[in-house]
Amino acid sequence: MSDNPSFVLKAIENVVYEQRPIPDIAPDQVLVAVKKTGICGSDVHYYVHGRIGDFVVNDPMILGHESAGIVSKVGSNVKHLKVGDRVAVEPGATCRACDACKAGRYNLCPDIIFAATPPYDGTLARFYCTPADLAYPLPEGVSLEDGAMMEPLAVGIHSVSNLGNFRSNQSIAIFGCGPVGLLCMAVAKALGAKRIVAVDIVPSRLEFAKEYAATHTYQPISPNDGESKLDFSRRNAENMKQQLQIEDRGVNAIDLVIDASGAEVSIQTAFYIVKSGGTFVQVGMGNPNVTVNLSMLMVKELVYKGSFRYGPGAYPLAIALVAQGKIDLKPLVTHRFKFDDALVAFNATRSGKSEDGKGVIKAIISGPDVAVEEN
Amino acid sequence: MSDNPSFVLKAIENVVYEQRPIPDIAPDQVLVAVKKTGICGSDVHYYVHGRIGDFVVNDPMILGHESAGIVSKVGSNVKHLKVGDRVAVEPGATCRACDACKAGRYNLCPDIIFAATPPYDGTLARFYCTPADLAYPLPEGVSLEDGAMMEPLAVGIHSVSNLGNFRSNQSIAIFGCGPVGLLCMAVAKALGAKRIVAVDIVPSRLEFAKEYAATHTYQPISPNDGESKLDFSRRNAENMKQQLQIEDRGVNAIDLVIDASGAEVSIQTAFYIVKSGGTFVQVGMGNPNVTVNLSMLMVKELVYKGSFRYGPGAYPLAIALVAQGKIDLKPLVTHRFKFDDALVAFNATRSGKSEDGKGVIKAIISGPDVAVEEN
Amino acid sequence: MSDNPSFVLKAIENVVYEQRPIPDIAPDQVLVAVKKTGICGSDVHYYVHGRIGDFVVNDPMILGHESAGIVSKVGSNVKHLKVGDRVAVEPGATCRACDACKAGRYNLCPDIIFAATPPYDGTLARFYCTPADLAYPLPEGVSLEDGAMMEPLAVGIHSVSNLGNFRSNQSIAIFGCGPVGLLCMAVAKALGAKRIVAVDIVPSRLEFAKEYAATHTYQPISPNDGESKLDFSRRNAENMKQQLQIEDRGVNAIDLVIDASGAEVSIQTAFYIVKSGGTFVQVGMGNPNVTVNLSMLMVKELVYKGSFRYGPGAYPLAIALVAQGKIDLKPLVTHRFKFDDALVAFNATRSGKSEDGKGVIKAIISGPDVAVEEN
Amino acid sequence: MSDNPSFVLKAIENVVYEQRPIPDIAPDQVLVAVKKTGICGSDVHYYVHGRIGDFVVNDPMILGHESAGIVSKVGSNVKHLKVGDRVAVEPGATCRACDACKAGRYNLCPDIIFAATPPYDGTLARFYCTPADLAYPLPEGVSLEDGAMMEPLAVGIHSVSNLGNFRSNQSIAIFGCGPVGLLCMAVAKALGAKRIVAVDIVPSRLEFAKEYAATHTYQPISPNDGESKLDFSRRNAENMKQQLQIEDRGVNAIDLVIDASGAEVSIQTAFYIVKSGGTFVQVGMGNPNVTVNLSMLMVKELVYKGSFRYGPGAYPLAIALVAQGKIDLKPLVTHRFKFDDALVAFNATRSGKSEDGKGVIKAIISGPDVAVEEN
Repeated sequence: MSDNPSFVLKAIENVVYEQRPIPDIAPDQVLVAVKKTGICGSDVHYYVHGRIGDFVVNDPMILGHESAGIVSKVGSNVKHLKVGDRVAVEPGATCRACDACKAGRYNLCPDIIFAATPPYDGTLARFYCTPADLAYPLPEGVSLEDGAMMEPLAVGIHSVSNLGNFRSNQSIAIFGCGPVGLLCMAVAKALGAKRIVAVDIVPSRLEFAKEYAATHTYQPISPNDGESKLDFSRRNAENMKQQLQIEDRGVNAIDLVIDASGAEVSIQTAFYIVKSGGTFVQVGMGNPNVTVNLSMLMVKELVYKGSFRYGPGAYPLAIALVAQGKIDLKPLVTHRFKFDDALVAFNATRSGKSEDGKGVIKAIISGPDVAVEEN
Repeated sequence: MSDNPSFVLKAIENVVYEQRPIPDIAPDQVLVAVKKTGICGSDVHYYVHGRIGDFVVNDPMILGHESAGIVSKVGSNVKHLKVGDRVAVEPGATCRACDACKAGRYNLCPDIIFAATPPYDGTLARFYCTPADLAYPLPEGVSLEDGAMMEPLAVGIHSVSNLGNFRSNQSIAIFGCGPVGLLCMAVAKALGAKRIVAVDIVPSRLEFAKEYAATHTYQPISPNDGESKLDFSRRNAENMKQQLQIEDRGVNAIDLVIDASGAEVSIQTAFYIVKSGGTFVQVGMGNPNVTVNLSMLMVKELVYKGSFRYGPGAYPLAIALVAQGKIDLKPLVTHRFKFDDALVAFNATRSGKSEDGKGVIKAIISGPDVAVEEN
Repeated sequence: MSDNPSFVLKAIENVVYEQRPIPDIAPDQVLVAVKKTGICGSDVHYYVHGRIGDFVVNDPMILGHESAGIVSKVGSNVKHLKVGDRVAVEPGATCRACDACKAGRYNLCPDIIFAATPPYDGTLARFYCTPADLAYPLPEGVSLEDGAMMEPLAVGIHSVSNLGNFRSNQSIAIFGCGPVGLLCMAVAKALGAKRIVAVDIVPSRLEFAKEYAATHTYQPISPNDGESKLDFSRRNAENMKQQLQIEDRGVNAIDLVIDASGAEVSIQTAFYIVKSGGTFVQVGMGNPNVTVNLSMLMVKELVYKGSFRYGPGAYPLAIALVAQGKIDLKPLVTHRFKFDDALVAFNATRSGKSEDGKGVIKAIISGPDVAVEEN
Repeated sequence: MSDNPSFVLKAIENVVYEQRPIPDIAPDQVLVAVKKTGICGSDVHYYVHGRIGDFVVNDPMILGHESAGIVSKVGSNVKHLKVGDRVAVEPGATCRACDACKAGRYNLCPDIIFAATPPYDGTLARFYCTPADLAYPLPEGVSLEDGAMMEPLAVGIHSVSNLGNFRSNQSIAIFGCGPVGLLCMAVAKALGAKRIVAVDIVPSRLEFAKEYAATHTYQPISPNDGESKLDFSRRNAENMKQQLQIEDRGVNAIDLVIDASGAEVSIQTAFYIVKSGGTFVQVGMGNPNVTVNLSMLMVKELVYKGSFRYGPGAYPLAIALVAQGKIDLKPLVTHRFKFDDALVAFNATRSGKSEDGKGVIKAIISGPDVAVEEN
């Protein structure tokens, strides 16, 4: 039988439900019955623009890549999983043989098969086939919704812990209070941050961040008439430093900055905010071309790192921190939708709020065989 | 007696010789009779503009910071030096007590006393007083001129070896064939580089680079009418990659890029040239504000590092590599001037060529008590 | 005036109170009125044996190096301290000019002046003179006794965080439940450990460890008649692994082992306990010559690191973790003595218990001018 | 057809030639016609003792793991190889899915299939089947014999470059002048060593080392009657330091020690020789239980690392350094044998010399279809 309903992007703003064959599994794979899938900005971007940079949707593609589900079939070589296990699915299957894979940087594998990155199908279907080692069992107390949220949380782990090397008693500033920014804050808190400064232009998002994980918040000032972006960024940074008593060195310094906004002004401001000798991790993608102040980069000997998805250890640490109660993912799931309402979910995420006006942080779509309230 | 003639910047384009008191030395210091001093772009910049960024020349300041000389007086606690020793002088005396100094990053010391960075006097005088541990004995076969060149070579060591972590059999591309760019090439060669790609817009500089240390050269193409800088940079990078068979991964990839030009197009091009997972070190300072492609930073997970002067171990390694014959500094010294002709030397460096039209790479000024030809 | 009573070791088991001159302070120094001093095993060792390895007490030496006090005089260059400030004193003043000091490893400075390491006097006196940057202000809520405890806590920070690079969600096993072992557990807990296994042969010490910071404990089995140490260690390790479900890899593996016992059997056992690819930090000193299993070192590619005192950042992190309530030092202070009873304190530490039979973890001697109960 | 003659260890000192089926290859594999195979001490150890530690030969096993050959069949997914390519074979096929494989430490994979480590067959046969990414094409100028030598060279690369992090202008001491010790010297030389000290008890081996790559040699003194090993090691170390002017710090210090001997006295001596803050890599396996001086480990804060086979990047760097002429493998191949004389080759390696008395460094066995002199 082949009953595998799937949510397929045919063309820009053109999605349909299609039946797709149930994938055959190889000896090292498992088949996962998808139960919960979060919608990511990138899913929406493909829906609206049909591309992200050089990745272009030329053929119909199943959307979705933040998923958890239940193992429904197990390959003959698989030992650590059995049918019925609840799992989070890491959505990037790598070649395992290239230099990047061997060197411990598999996110840079050129042949990665990443769910819902063209030309590869995503997870918004009844079934998804994955290498067994990318299906992580969820411990007791970790829900399937939590499991779906492990994907963006792994992005936060990768940025804050792996690339940012964030340590106990350090201070961090995070620009952008969307899901990834908030999850970076959650990671920083779980790792023992001294100060977590949330930055956003929307006051309600700052309030949420403060309640969720941030110790301080900052709402940027407004540019003056005719003020250049660069002048404004400098003035904004000076204001932020004064308001929050941030210094370039010592106990009041910001050890790590994460930009999860992709906004040019945020990035420019961040160069002034981070301490001398500090690290700046770029995880938010916005305008690809951004004017930055290289004097700051040099005089402070900053390290400015791009972050791309996640590498070894990110999923296990994400799951462990949630299982231990150090990170609570539940407050971030603001909206829930049935599989049949996937398009409504996409439109809510696109507009940033649902029809009743409530702000969307993360919308979760339930699989075809699970109730929205079941978890 | 106090006969200490000094070359002093009084104001923009206003230099004079003045008598300054011979410095008293503390128990941990030595007095060095300065014999050879190289002119750096920053010296010329202060002479022409009176400032570099936030560093402003408000009071008369002795110029020069790339110096070697002979120990003429030794503090009572100093054991490793005696009068008559030939030494290279590292021109930054740090506080040794701040977090940066203690953590092994003394170039980030906020209280560093750096020669010829206002408000601190430089080395273009008969005598310069320095902490004894910053006066490095020159081995046999290393000349005083070589000793003066250790300062820019230390910049190269810091960028290529310390920040770039460059290793044997790696490939490097260096944008800008001025003294620092050439010295970065020399360091890469000494460390066992597989490919050293020199980039510059001036053919004669590329020829020199090729003869000196580069294995390949690249002269950028010209922009088309109306082409944006970013479009041009991308096209230039594609051309460079094709011409030199540079790939994003594997044996034909560029592990490390150094920008020693400060030019926006170089920096933009470099983001395309460096390999996936590679490192980009910024050592050249030009326009402080540069538009860069953050998509590349993220998708390749680049590490973009600012380089500022040099830290622990740079001088010793510089001296050792020269003493072992792995780096030859002599070809870079294109011009030599008497102490009394310091202004001529500055003007030659400023214009990039001497009166006879010969291109200047590095001009060396001899101290008041040594012949130009003596070394 | 020169009223500076000091507790001086004249020869083996020969201590007296002497008047010593109040030290003059240099411009970068402060004079600290010592209020609280912990007794360390090394202090007792000098008292009993007159030497530790190559460090021999040839001349009378003031004992003590774990101290906190109140600033009573401030050098002319000192800005961050004023008379009356409560401070913890880091007891090693380094040369600041050697390669080790410059490279961020000042604990390896060959010229370090370390309190109560011959030939240098310690802190058990009314006054102690220190470079100002080694006097760390104590935040509100951190007592002077806490301040004295920062010294052994810094040892724990250095071993667990700096050398062991211990991270959130990792597991650690610590052999030896004396003060340093317990403080290593406290650090691991503060850094977010998943499992903290305490090992000791004394049940009451294990109970204390469990209550204080450990998640699991292990009491070694007894050797069989005629069993070699090595055979016993292997059998002990197998028993420990089975009892605590420790594996060589995966979620049940021990990422980091600390030996704070110096006992050969502990060290031998530890090689079996630590995970494949793991790290083993040696902080306890016992018999200098120990037979170890190099097959384990090689097949697991272990990293076995010696730990010596502490380097940059240890004191600041120690103070911060205590100020934030992540580490509670109070339970470790089991005994308190007046300055005049210093010898009683030494004897209690030497025997491991006080006259009333209560086990000693840490004994604190109050300075001459402060009540035992004042803090 | 199935003509695949193989050199099989049946039991201790019992070897035979057997026909084995020609392996079928999977889509990601290649079949290599083995042309040259070096004999390693571990091969001989299995031949003589039937086991190494916990690895026991219970069933007949083909010997040999240092091989190069010619691709004779290519799996359907393989792109970078074609029939006829000359390749070096990395003899460990890993699971690619465990934590160690993903984290860039595949040599710690618990499921590694390593040639001639029981229960897995080795390469001394007409054909060997390998994952295609473990067959590395040999550049022009690199012979098949060189290709076979890449295996022990990779051990040297891993120890000196990867674990030892050896850099230009550093100094190294290598204990043991067998093939691995000599190859460690060759790597150190290729990486720009300042001093390479070879240590061995056999003068002729020291002479060879000096001619091959070492800059200095040291022959240990003899123990006195009744002198303990530890006392002797200390005296030996003091003698070595004096003779070669080795100091604990500074330009005359030894940055890295490699023990390639496995001898207890070497290991004990090495702890005294390595510099303060230095690294000691153990690559030679001898008596598994060795008594070491932990005081040195601690007071110098040494890092003592076990080395096991090789990880990512070792083979590519090995091949590149040979192709660039920075390492010459030819002098190490002292003996060559026909496939039919494999047992003679084993006996020569076992005794350390051939029948004519010539010392064996490395013996190479040619495959069944290639002449001994062909290369």
